[in-house]
Amino acid sequence: MATANNILEGKYPAKAHARRVAQYLRSQGHAGSGLIYLEAQKTRMIEDNDEAMPFRQRRPFFYLSGCHLPDSYLIYDVHKDELTLFIPPIDPESVIWSGLPLSSSDALNTYDIDRALPTTDLNDTLASVASEYNGKATVFAINHQISETTSFNGFAETNRSSLMKAIDDTRVVKDDYEVALIRKANSISAKAHIEAIKASKTASSEREIEAAFIGTCIANGCREQSYHPIVACGENGATLHYGKNDDNLIDSTSKQRKKSVLIDAGGEYQTYASDITRVFPLSGKFAPETRSIYEIVLQMQVECIEMLKAGVQWEEVHSLAHRIAIRGLLKLGILRGTEDELFEKRVSVAFFPHGLGHYLGMDTHDTGGNPNYDDKDSMFRYLRVRGRLPAGSVVTVEPGIYFCRFIIAPFLESPELNKYIDAEVLEHYWSVGGVRIEDNVLVTNDGYDNLTTAPKTIEEVEALAA
Amino acid sequence: MATANNILEGKYPAKAHARRVAQYLRSQGHAGSGLIYLEAQKTRMIEDNDEAMPFRQRRPFFYLSGCHLPDSYLIYDVHKDELTLFIPPIDPESVIWSGLPLSSSDALNTYDIDRALPTTDLNDTLASVASEYNGKATVFAINHQISETTSFNGFAETNRSSLMKAIDDTRVVKDDYEVALIRKANSISAKAHIEAIKASKTASSEREIEAAFIGTCIANGCREQSYHPIVACGENGATLHYGKNDDNLIDSTSKQRKKSVLIDAGGEYQTYASDITRVFPLSGKFAPETRSIYEIVLQMQVECIEMLKAGVQWEEVHSLAHRIAIRGLLKLGILRGTEDELFEKRVSVAFFPHGLGHYLGMDTHDTGGNPNYDDKDSMFRYLRVRGRLPAGSVVTVEPGIYFCRFIIAPFLESPELNKYIDAEVLEHYWSVGGVRIEDNVLVTNDGYDNLTTAPKTIEEVEALAA
Repeated sequence: MATANNILEGKYPAKAHARRVAQYLRSQGHAGSGLIYLEAQKTRMIEDNDEAMPFRQRRPFFYLSGCHLPDSYLIYDVHKDELTLFIPPIDPESVIWSGLPLSSSDALNTYDIDRALPTTDLNDTLASVASEYNGKATVFAINHQISETTSFNGFAETNRSSLMKAIDDTRVVKDDYEVALIRKANSISAKAHIEAIKASKTASSEREIEAAFIGTCIANGCREQSYHPIVACGENGATLHYGKNDDNLIDSTSKQRKKSVLIDAGGEYQTYASDITRVFPLSGKFAPETRSIYEIVLQMQVECIEMLKAGVQWEEVHSLAHRIAIRGLLKLGILRGTEDELFEKRVSVAFFPHGLGHYLGMDTHDTGGNPNYDDKDSMFRYLRVRGRLPAGSVVTVEPGIYFCRFIIAPFLESPELNKYIDAEVLEHYWSVGGVRIEDNVLVTNDGYDNLTTAPKTIEEVEALAA
Repeated sequence: MATANNILEGKYPAKAHARRVAQYLRSQGHAGSGLIYLEAQKTRMIEDNDEAMPFRQRRPFFYLSGCHLPDSYLIYDVHKDELTLFIPPIDPESVIWSGLPLSSSDALNTYDIDRALPTTDLNDTLASVASEYNGKATVFAINHQISETTSFNGFAETNRSSLMKAIDDTRVVKDDYEVALIRKANSISAKAHIEAIKASKTASSEREIEAAFIGTCIANGCREQSYHPIVACGENGATLHYGKNDDNLIDSTSKQRKKSVLIDAGGEYQTYASDITRVFPLSGKFAPETRSIYEIVLQMQVECIEMLKAGVQWEEVHSLAHRIAIRGLLKLGILRGTEDELFEKRVSVAFFPHGLGHYLGMDTHDTGGNPNYDDKDSMFRYLRVRGRLPAGSVVTVEPGIYFCRFIIAPFLESPELNKYIDAEVLEHYWSVGGVRIEDNVLVTNDGYDNLTTAPKTIEEVEALAA
């Protein structure tokens, strides 16, 4: 079997992606000759400043080009199966400051494309394609991503509504190269999680742990984070998207180190994301309440991963996570009643309010999940993927149990629901904050391939933190 | 004397800044009752994504509020000397994900303001101010930074052209609090430069050195970089704004470690910048050519800093740097001719093509410098500050000498100028890349206060790198 690094020695398979997107468009009834047109993200300046904003390549453009350059353009001639990249030409004023830009021959060597031309050739090339097809070809482009300077004169039609969905849906099933990129992002991020846990032993604030995570990512090849890291100690872990990461690890009242830290962070490797959550104790050993909750969440995660296989219904996996949470919380005495009743009444949503996971790819919350945020059913409202998972999709599996006063309060105050929660037992668990465990998993025809290697058993995590 | 940390225990002096800006407007003939209106940066989403873009507060808003929150507003009633901050109210949907927002009473405790209200009160408050002044008050606002939802009904006039320049010019002279912030950013960044030099001993690529720099900044309180760091080994140092930072420290041909590394990087502390450049050897000792150039640049820098004092003409300081460069390059035999002739012919611009420095504050290239990028004189075209420096301004002093083929070639090819450069001697210096040494200096009535503490003598730098 080819390793991630072997595969990554080749070129990013831009041409294959272009073909798959064209095939999708044909499957939607867009037959005949056509041209796919995509634009890179522009260089954008910080407002009232002479520095460029942090650059993030447009995903549709990258998917069909593999090119990280700003201010570039791409056309794919569907009929001729020809991919042409247009890159910025030499600008002498900017060479003084920034050096020589990529040349056309470097671009041909670097990217899986058929032609590399300067952007100054874009409109002439478009005009010549239009005339080759006698004005009968259609341009497929993305609305709001067409520069005013670009001319589609001579084409029969500009279709601005089909391409985005074609690319979004095509992106769901990853090829080997994409899986290798996600695996690499995962392997670097696993290192970073380990270094972060180690750094926590001498750190005095969340920020120092965040620094260890980000520094390790950068040093090992993930210059960007896939998303804003979450480093939450103690009760901060109950805030799902906590992001300040500036709290003290010492409790100001008790002068003791807080119980645990939740890190939800992943590096981005060549435009592909990882998204990993781990929880570890600050004193080397989990506090008894945290350990109990950790055991439930780990069981939720492991059993849900075991269910994965091409064709599995994601709602069913999510439901299993809730049932395991209910059984565990019943055992601890936090919940009261029968498993079925608690499930039907959606009581476990008070402790596990978010979805089990989402597709992962170039975006952290990757495209094609078809969520229904208007769902009246609170258990499924925030589920970012609905329906059956195809082989080749990569999904995060990230169950959690949280003790968030703001979320649980309405349940405690509800005359219908408060009988299901034992407020006295609950009192012992607020300090747990939240526990979430998250891996990135490739769905296969036979089952799954877990891409995340960061340690997660209680023994492994305690050994690292000790 | 109060230390930086003492001063920073108090509040950011937003009110004093508001008064100074109002005073500036009055000095420009804008008398009588008026209202200054400012908006924070909005939360902006990444295109086609559900994650927010990296947030960077608008500087004019921060200057008069000290507030880091997005989606906020500020009004300053000039006549009543009253500063009112409007902050986002509680949004139950977002509390589930992000926790409770800052409350009005927390805002009053945190910021140097008179009132804190929810943003939902903005238009009512504006209307009531307008009616208090019987429709005779003017609103001063910044063009393109006025939300469509904001109503200035009832005001006599909306002036959109005066406020930005008033704030830009007022920002040039820093108060003690601002100097303390820049000093703190410098002290953290000095640590990061030292850690980066230490990391270079075992690093194999520029990226690992960058990681040490950024990681140290984050761990010590600078979560953001003031600008994209430059970590350039060997000849990469000749590219002024090199930013890829992904090259190997080992030369692919000779298999030897490259001679030196140039790091131009500074952390941002609470919206205030630092901007520091250091060059260090990769083998513990500077190569003889690099050492010779380093000595010249250090002399340029030290003597230019010695010239600083309120009222000094920046062009004269910049000229001194060129004269010292000419003397040094004459001594090495790279230049030929007399100092005066070389200066008049602008030959040293081939080796020192950029300006000596710029104002530093909330922006790295801070406001109020009045550059003239159309200047026909190549020696002064890129000088970002023109004229006399006032006491309280903070300026970077960053001379450099570079061996950049693209910049030097036109001089070597010029029939008029090529006699001034000894191409054979020059041949020995291409591998030096570039040397730049940069400190951040406060201009005072008596002289100056160098805020940068990172080591820079040859002995200090070699000791760290050894």
